[in-house]
Amino acid sequence: MSRIVTVGAAQLGPINRSDSREAVVTRMLALLAQAAESACDLVVYPELALTTFFPRWFLNDINEADHFYETAMPNEATQPLFDEARRLGIGFCLGYALRETDAAGQVRRWNVQTLVERDGTQVATFKKVHIPGHESNEPDRPFQHLERYYFEPSPDGFGVWNAFGGRIGMMICNDRRWPESYREMGLQGVEMILCGYNTPLHYAPDPSQDRLQGFHNTLVMSSGAYQNGTFVVGVAKGGTEEGVPSLAESTIFAPSGEVLARAKTTGDELVVAQCDLDWCRSYTGTLFDFDRYRRPEVYSRLTAQRGVVIDEASP
Amino acid sequence: MSRIVTVGAAQLGPINRSDSREAVVTRMLALLAQAAESACDLVVYPELALTTFFPRWFLNDINEADHFYETAMPNEATQPLFDEARRLGIGFCLGYALRETDAAGQVRRWNVQTLVERDGTQVATFKKVHIPGHESNEPDRPFQHLERYYFEPSPDGFGVWNAFGGRIGMMICNDRRWPESYREMGLQGVEMILCGYNTPLHYAPDPSQDRLQGFHNTLVMSSGAYQNGTFVVGVAKGGTEEGVPSLAESTIFAPSGEVLARAKTTGDELVVAQCDLDWCRSYTGTLFDFDRYRRPEVYSRLTAQRGVVIDEASP
Repeated sequence: MSRIVTVGAAQLGPINRSDSREAVVTRMLALLAQAAESACDLVVYPELALTTFFPRWFLNDINEADHFYETAMPNEATQPLFDEARRLGIGFCLGYALRETDAAGQVRRWNVQTLVERDGTQVATFKKVHIPGHESNEPDRPFQHLERYYFEPSPDGFGVWNAFGGRIGMMICNDRRWPESYREMGLQGVEMILCGYNTPLHYAPDPSQDRLQGFHNTLVMSSGAYQNGTFVVGVAKGGTEEGVPSLAESTIFAPSGEVLARAKTTGDELVVAQCDLDWCRSYTGTLFDFDRYRRPEVYSRLTAQRGVVIDEASP
Repeated sequence: MSRIVTVGAAQLGPINRSDSREAVVTRMLALLAQAAESACDLVVYPELALTTFFPRWFLNDINEADHFYETAMPNEATQPLFDEARRLGIGFCLGYALRETDAAGQVRRWNVQTLVERDGTQVATFKKVHIPGHESNEPDRPFQHLERYYFEPSPDGFGVWNAFGGRIGMMICNDRRWPESYREMGLQGVEMILCGYNTPLHYAPDPSQDRLQGFHNTLVMSSGAYQNGTFVVGVAKGGTEEGVPSLAESTIFAPSGEVLARAKTTGDELVVAQCDLDWCRSYTGTLFDFDRYRRPEVYSRLTAQRGVVIDEASP
């Protein structure tokens, strides 16, 4: 038996501040047409795919950033994408900024990905769990990484959904650096994780990491795939956007941790792989048979504490 | 400031069933002498370094395996190693099988590593947490992997100790495949993890993994190092032992996840790297500042369940 999901990682090149959502959706539709030619079941777009990566700028009044957020999905600008995907029978995963008003009348801002099935059903909207960067303007940086100013962290954590004939999970950008993200999904039987990202090549707090961005990107997704026996689809917004060079290297990983396919450019590019979800069992049924081999009774620190605790009583 | 620990990964080639402990200790002393020439502070020997990897054989009566276990450390065979290391002012980490009788008169069998400081002080004895393989004879295999017959899993989990001017942790072989191992130590401020291993190239439950043994070995230690901002010292018993080819590739990893040094042979070989423990802060003080960025409030599955749980109520 085999359960093939043909997935397309729809990498996007830069989106400038002045680009309209309509212009971006036109680029997305072009990649969707390629996906149809490659018989894709599922197309994955990057994080914050409808706008430029706006957390690179500080705004004294956060409400001046409202135009970077969606308030409904689909909406007028994205409806053509929803329509065409449904017509083609292709599902998709789309990252964007969501601004909503909760029951208490409070404005909430999230960094989300929505998963849509081949028949147009919205399966789930995932909120980013690990919000990197900083909360306040740091004008000495060449550019800001103010995600902690513009987004709240998800209160919900990681889910896995029955879709595309398998168990599908989502994570966003920085979530991929944390083994906890993959494991939370692994413990829900995940078979394919969809992950959009925007990763500047320059990391201001420690520029010694700049030359390692591609290495680290591959390392975390490859190990997360292997250690949980799952496919991982990593999709970049790459290239130099508003003067900030960002990592491309969109990559589809097998449950073995191997690279199945990888982008060859830093611009708009569809990266395709046929993923047999039954491959997952080679790992989840052997070496990573969690029920047989995990030892949660000695993992208490993982959930009992957030940061480092040094027991000074130990030698 | 820098805090340099010069570490030697003392890879061993095969140890046959007929080899005496004295013969093995003679080989260890040769590597120790090389370590002195390289000004090592610390030498790390592999898992079960004093004997052949005996879990490859089934014995109906487990007591017939008693001669593979130590009952005290140091003992007559290893005393020359302890003496010479102390004379040279070099610390070491030694893996072996331990058989002891507990307060209730029960025989307990452990797969352990002992850490010894430069002055000869025994810092700690770590018991392996994740016991791989199987419990019962499986005669259809070309060789057995009966660790679950010969060893109990540690009830204590992972510790980190003040030694060698830093925070030192230990793990053994299969422990290195689990991100939980590194994270439990990361949450205790680990700066260097010492890990001996025996890894047959053939994995009977899924031979498709055989060609990937080296890739997976590097992948898990590299990602564990990066995601916790720690050095990792992986030390093999390599080569073909009693007809079973095993992975060598002893490797020292930096907190960046990069390979600092790697074995070039499958036999007795000392692999040396100067490790500046202050490098760890480049990661633990930025991207992996756990207290700032981790989200244990949404990691509840990590400790609440051992195996996969699928919530059928979800879509």
